[in-house]
Amino acid sequence: MHLRGNARWPNAADVGTELAFIERLRRFATHPAARGLSDDVAVFDIGGTRLVITHDSLIEGVHFLASDPPESVAWKLLAVNLSDLAAKGAAPSGAIMAYTLRGDESWDAAFADGLGAALAHFGVPLLGGDTVSAPTRMLGLTLFGETRGTVPQRSGAHAGDGLFVTGTVGDAGVGLTLCSGEGASLAPSRDHAAILRAAYQYPQPQCAAGAILAPVVTAMMDVSDGLLIDASRMAAASGLCAEIDLDAVPLSPALRAVAGDDRAARIAAATAGDDYQLLFTSALPLPPLPVPVTRIGRMARGKGLLLRDRDGDVPLPQSLGWLHGLP
Amino acid sequence: MHLRGNARWPNAADVGTELAFIERLRRFATHPAARGLSDDVAVFDIGGTRLVITHDSLIEGVHFLASDPPESVAWKLLAVNLSDLAAKGAAPSGAIMAYTLRGDESWDAAFADGLGAALAHFGVPLLGGDTVSAPTRMLGLTLFGETRGTVPQRSGAHAGDGLFVTGTVGDAGVGLTLCSGEGASLAPSRDHAAILRAAYQYPQPQCAAGAILAPVVTAMMDVSDGLLIDASRMAAASGLCAEIDLDAVPLSPALRAVAGDDRAARIAAATAGDDYQLLFTSALPLPPLPVPVTRIGRMARGKGLLLRDRDGDVPLPQSLGWLHGLP
Repeated sequence: MHLRGNARWPNAADVGTELAFIERLRRFATHPAARGLSDDVAVFDIGGTRLVITHDSLIEGVHFLASDPPESVAWKLLAVNLSDLAAKGAAPSGAIMAYTLRGDESWDAAFADGLGAALAHFGVPLLGGDTVSAPTRMLGLTLFGETRGTVPQRSGAHAGDGLFVTGTVGDAGVGLTLCSGEGASLAPSRDHAAILRAAYQYPQPQCAAGAILAPVVTAMMDVSDGLLIDASRMAAASGLCAEIDLDAVPLSPALRAVAGDDRAARIAAATAGDDYQLLFTSALPLPPLPVPVTRIGRMARGKGLLLRDRDGDVPLPQSLGWLHGLP
Repeated sequence: MHLRGNARWPNAADVGTELAFIERLRRFATHPAARGLSDDVAVFDIGGTRLVITHDSLIEGVHFLASDPPESVAWKLLAVNLSDLAAKGAAPSGAIMAYTLRGDESWDAAFADGLGAALAHFGVPLLGGDTVSAPTRMLGLTLFGETRGTVPQRSGAHAGDGLFVTGTVGDAGVGLTLCSGEGASLAPSRDHAAILRAAYQYPQPQCAAGAILAPVVTAMMDVSDGLLIDASRMAAASGLCAEIDLDAVPLSPALRAVAGDDRAARIAAATAGDDYQLLFTSALPLPPLPVPVTRIGRMARGKGLLLRDRDGDVPLPQSLGWLHGLP
């Protein structure tokens, strides 16, 4: 059970509501596979293998724009769930979809075609699901996979471990701004705009990197709501403090060109979310990986988050995660 | 992938939209575990065991009333998914929930408490999930279970098999009418009203019967949308005709007292849905079961549905299944 940023309850009181609800569920979610509802997945030993199951939903107006191409929503629905499996080093075995029909046949057809393409791209079989109608377009996917190895948790980091992230962060946040039609002042080049929009609409889950990293990390999770908020969750789950060097946070050339790389731009990138990179801790040398990896800090005794850059301590922003600021 | 009745698209054109969408998905859902998207569950062989997975959603205003007690919605969310597993003879291993927060803390708290009680009652561990906010209250549950035996399909019936149903049907339909405040003319006694409301709000999945029946039936499914529509689906999947004796359809004493048992009342009961009984076919003597079972007809060569009662052939009603007539 994890928190998902959203536009409806952006203030602390409402996050409190969500935490209170999860706390209430936690009282009876005592099975070891539930991992105290503090992880992104459930892990269940079954018939000699380890089943990893995740479910993420996308809601129109909260997690995607009504104007987003249906094909991209289908891609994203699969990608965000694959990202959760990737962070556990599990290979996907099958998917089950919950789909709301809204009476828009061309949207449904485009979505179905896009889903077929995405499933084929990632080699995931669609096994079944549930079709309902609803006043709001809300899509859910249950994805399950298998692994025979260790399944990294958020809570496994040790003091002294390095803190790493794959790829770059922040592109999807700017992409969302552009797709929302609010990025005119950013004046991106055509190429940069395409890269940033694609980062938002067609995120790339780090499946291959996750499988390689799972046996050598101490903790791992995917970055869905923002690097800072997700790092703070890993720190909290591990009972440690995450010290992050803001200057080390990896930004793409497109993002630097459009938004710069001063302190404000870096904080924006580190709180934007929708990155679907892997955040992990390790004290070992890293194996060769199919994606660039950056050491952005370390885990230390204490708690919370410490942010620094070349100019010294950086005050924590009011919001550590992007709350999917859709209308 | 199965159709779920609902109030928003009650006409044939919209059912056609849904079928077109599923047809589009079917093109690429070619994995054997998908069962051609024509069953209620996905069945996946994993690590020497057989994993059975189902996902059903409940939407406020479509599958439950805003006035229904949150505890009953939690019960129903688990029960309707357990019913799908029961029809496959699988024992539940764990559940993952998708939950929409609507900012109503007392509703959420009552739901969480009710879910805890329902999970404890059925011995199902909650393993994780996803919490989002949305304009509409929509709850989803992924339930998975295991079986080492045969998993009955809808499509396995043979000509000459008897057609059977557990328990009684129709109570939940009248219960919904009463809970909607529209049953004043029915004038039920207090006891009967309580029984009928409970059938709608607290359905009892036939888990024990399903486990016993799975090895001896030729086809099995649960009755969620109405006895007639679900029997016609089983007939279609098996390439046969279902012949049903309307007089044999089992009605509860409470239903008879409130709605009578003439042809119209029997058709209403057989199309009401939300029964969560098991519908199955078999040519063998049945083993002892923990629930009454009634032979309501047989499977024959041909296609579609043939309905008869003591007065002869019964014209098929325009709707074979209750389309959850909520406002």
